[in-house]
Amino acid sequence: MSNKKKTTLKDIANILKLSTAAVSKALQDDSRISAKTKEAVKKVAKELNYQPNHLASALRKGKSNLVGVIVPRTNSNFFSSVVQNIEEVLNKDGYNIIITQSNESYKKECDSIDTLLFTQVDGIIASMANETINLEYYEKIKSRGIPLILFDRGENDLNVDYIGIDDYASSHMIVEHLVEQGCKRIAHIGGYQHTRIFNNRIRGYKDAIKKHGLPLDSELLLESSLTQEDGRKKMEQLLTLGTRPDAVYIAGDYAALGALQVLQENAIDVPNEIALVGFGNEPFTAMVSPTISSIEQHSMEIGRLAAQTFLEHVASPDVKQTLNKKILNAELIVRDSSNKKSLS
Amino acid sequence: MSNKKKTTLKDIANILKLSTAAVSKALQDDSRISAKTKEAVKKVAKELNYQPNHLASALRKGKSNLVGVIVPRTNSNFFSSVVQNIEEVLNKDGYNIIITQSNESYKKECDSIDTLLFTQVDGIIASMANETINLEYYEKIKSRGIPLILFDRGENDLNVDYIGIDDYASSHMIVEHLVEQGCKRIAHIGGYQHTRIFNNRIRGYKDAIKKHGLPLDSELLLESSLTQEDGRKKMEQLLTLGTRPDAVYIAGDYAALGALQVLQENAIDVPNEIALVGFGNEPFTAMVSPTISSIEQHSMEIGRLAAQTFLEHVASPDVKQTLNKKILNAELIVRDSSNKKSLS
Repeated sequence: MSNKKKTTLKDIANILKLSTAAVSKALQDDSRISAKTKEAVKKVAKELNYQPNHLASALRKGKSNLVGVIVPRTNSNFFSSVVQNIEEVLNKDGYNIIITQSNESYKKECDSIDTLLFTQVDGIIASMANETINLEYYEKIKSRGIPLILFDRGENDLNVDYIGIDDYASSHMIVEHLVEQGCKRIAHIGGYQHTRIFNNRIRGYKDAIKKHGLPLDSELLLESSLTQEDGRKKMEQLLTLGTRPDAVYIAGDYAALGALQVLQENAIDVPNEIALVGFGNEPFTAMVSPTISSIEQHSMEIGRLAAQTFLEHVASPDVKQTLNKKILNAELIVRDSSNKKSLS
Repeated sequence: MSNKKKTTLKDIANILKLSTAAVSKALQDDSRISAKTKEAVKKVAKELNYQPNHLASALRKGKSNLVGVIVPRTNSNFFSSVVQNIEEVLNKDGYNIIITQSNESYKKECDSIDTLLFTQVDGIIASMANETINLEYYEKIKSRGIPLILFDRGENDLNVDYIGIDDYASSHMIVEHLVEQGCKRIAHIGGYQHTRIFNNRIRGYKDAIKKHGLPLDSELLLESSLTQEDGRKKMEQLLTLGTRPDAVYIAGDYAALGALQVLQENAIDVPNEIALVGFGNEPFTAMVSPTISSIEQHSMEIGRLAAQTFLEHVASPDVKQTLNKKILNAELIVRDSSNKKSLS
């Protein structure tokens, strides 16, 4: 394999002392070009291994049949599963997807958006990075006039389609369940408050705690990046409290795993001394011992709905996009980490 | 957000009754265009929200600063980690990556290649789908004259750069370890024989078994898709044998997890009745009980080397690509599933 530069129309034009427009027409068998010139152009094109540029034609038509997908990271069962389902629906309609990941970084997310706009995608389906507060790059997508659909991590301020689960109600469900298990001092290791979904979970936690007349101590509510490592740190912090919690609800499964490890290293009985509930239903929650209770986020349905929403916009390009919010009911999967044996 | 078609140079040209070339020149402040025309063009461009097309300029220069990455699936710690490390190295050099997944399907892999070539990537780094036997689409990449680098799943016949671990030696390492644990009847649930890495693992298994004078029964060697579900099926099949194996080496961790579940459902003592070794060192192998012994594939180093190999080609475009094979030594992580307590 050689690494010579791709052959362009200009290369062929230079050799034959023709204009690039004439070369382009010759390659398309345009009747305005003589048979002799066509033959010469095709011969040189073949010698230089010229590959006709389908993208150029997409540029003219304003349609690439590509949809860009931006995820915070691919290394998460939730995001992988959403992407998989977006892809299945879009492939059936003749679209291919290209994936970029922000790695939770604002800068990388901006790069991803530029990259996708550069490749002339017909639309973008995205879930925002943890770091993202400035919405300028998302406004850039909107100003291009292509559909933008957000899922899981969205922003009300953008006024675009959004598909996700009811985070506020999920927190209520978790607190109800822990109260039923007899827990009286429930801590929450939450995500960043500036991220809408995590803020909704925090609001749900606070309101549910108040509803049940339980203590809402500020020391029981911690903000976390929700990595496994930070889950460890925040759980260690909770264990130093004068009065320890008897339950911890953690807004992400990886952080819940880190927290569980700390509890086990400290020989604390889970769930009887401290009950634990995670969020996301990552497959490992059913594999570890004890298994971890968690919230199923319906990734398959989120992916399908996001893709369908894109297709609806494409089907009705003249209809002004109506704000479309699809909020799914989440489901609590109760496992050993919060299922007290004394009750069963 | 409206969904009107993207504004093109042609739209502006039509309104002003100019040629698209003149509009393009006006937007680039070309001296051959009058100030009056420039002003008119810029006014209409602004009204129609025209976005200058950076891609068109990339097409002229033959360089997009994008690298395409094709993985069988993103939902695997190994592939995610390789992609992450490719990205870190390439970002530092001003390249962005776009990811496509084949979902182990040959057809999807062909679509991925077409999509990436369409977006004018400057190179492709890929790991082949399980189904892929026909190499025609990979030849298409080579004929474009852009660097192609394969990792993990490659093909000798393509004669391109390849980064991976020593699969043949890994099998030897596993069999040695199981022999040391006193195992005498070692089964192998392997991948598809037509895939080079799995074929190398199978060859390594056979040669190591022969070397130790152990039985090489055909009923002990099964071909599998290596999904969790197929791992279950193949383990069930091994349990029906007249003489059961006392160890099973499985060429993928997800299949090993399925196999472990079957052993536990049948109340078989792991490792004392049947020892188990997986492949890939997925994080869950350290989380389940018993923990699963596995092969670490050095995904970080594979990703970095793949990216560096691409950069080397870009730095020396005039040097004909020399076949570059980087084979890393794998590492066996011994965990509870193959560590017999009677020996310790």
